[in-house]
Amino acid sequence: MIKLLLAEDQHVVRSALAALLELEDDLTVVAQVGSGDEVVPAALAHTPDVAVLDVDMPGLDGLSAAAELRERLPRCRVLILTGHGKPGHLRRALSADVGGFLLKTAPPDDLTGAIRTVAAGGRVLDPSLAVAAWDLAGNPLTPRDADVLRLAAEGADADEIAARLHLSPGTVRNYLTAIVAKLNARNRTDAVRIAHEAGWI
Amino acid sequence: MIKLLLAEDQHVVRSALAALLELEDDLTVVAQVGSGDEVVPAALAHTPDVAVLDVDMPGLDGLSAAAELRERLPRCRVLILTGHGKPGHLRRALSADVGGFLLKTAPPDDLTGAIRTVAAGGRVLDPSLAVAAWDLAGNPLTPRDADVLRLAAEGADADEIAARLHLSPGTVRNYLTAIVAKLNARNRTDAVRIAHEAGWI
Repeated sequence: MIKLLLAEDQHVVRSALAALLELEDDLTVVAQVGSGDEVVPAALAHTPDVAVLDVDMPGLDGLSAAAELRERLPRCRVLILTGHGKPGHLRRALSADVGGFLLKTAPPDDLTGAIRTVAAGGRVLDPSLAVAAWDLAGNPLTPRDADVLRLAAEGADADEIAARLHLSPGTVRNYLTAIVAKLNARNRTDAVRIAHEAGWI
Repeated sequence: MIKLLLAEDQHVVRSALAALLELEDDLTVVAQVGSGDEVVPAALAHTPDVAVLDVDMPGLDGLSAAAELRERLPRCRVLILTGHGKPGHLRRALSADVGGFLLKTAPPDDLTGAIRTVAAGGRVLDPSLAVAAWDLAGNPLTPRDADVLRLAAEGADADEIAARLHLSPGTVRNYLTAIVAKLNARNRTDAVRIAHEAGWI
């Protein structure tokens, strides 16, 4: 029996999903929560095999909850079930080492199949996100580079970025120089444009 | 009208593909070749919009031909059409900046659709390769790192790797140290194992 935790803020959607999954002989929903903040406490209390997490939820989002879950309960695997596959979300899912990433447009059989694959230690990615994943594979930026560049894109200067990321201003300037070189950009503004168009920040 | 070059070593397969593509009103096959070596000369002579390349061919393989084509005739876009999607092939396709990567198991409509997308500057990746692309996205190795590690996996020492890649032995040792660190490996052997299991070399 595969024990499931469901995190989805839309109550009627969550209940419908739970009813659908309970129809399967080998799946059982042991916990349901409506916000990301509740994921880890519920997982610690009910020890699910797989946590099925929406991304957009009040409080902690599903990807942050996945990262926290990985620290606190590494045996619980995660399947992200979301309405859209933004490249930035895919990248964060990858960093959080989630087992699967499925869109809500997928047919129900794909969902139950994905849960079984993830429970068995496999990986699942929605086929419609193939090109997005491929683009991501060409990303020369490390997650830290992306953090620095995202703050630069918001208009922060090196001192502000340094304060926000607990780095020294000199280190931030080194990051920015390296990022401009990695992207073959003319300057910081150009680097922001290139990374944004490619979905890397 | 979209002008096509077809490179496929199995003659009957190549002719069948050409016949299939000629059925479409907006596609025309301007050149057919049976080896990778012939791709660039034929492309220079016939200036196709899209080159549809098999990977496994005598002489130059399709991915090397794609890389050469990109240098010599950058306006010609490339669609790789192959029997299998090895992660190493996907990585090389990405480095060669190909427009599309499709498996021969795809339905004919997917092939014609992919050609049109690639001709228009878009990107296509076979949906069944979504997970492989996602795994690739987590690859911390640069293409050069992968070259160095692949030679190390074949048993070459730093001096041999240096000679093969036209680098100094000291530079190769720096690469190997960095690779071991990037992969959180215990040593070179462990780095080879990790990269091999992940499909990064």
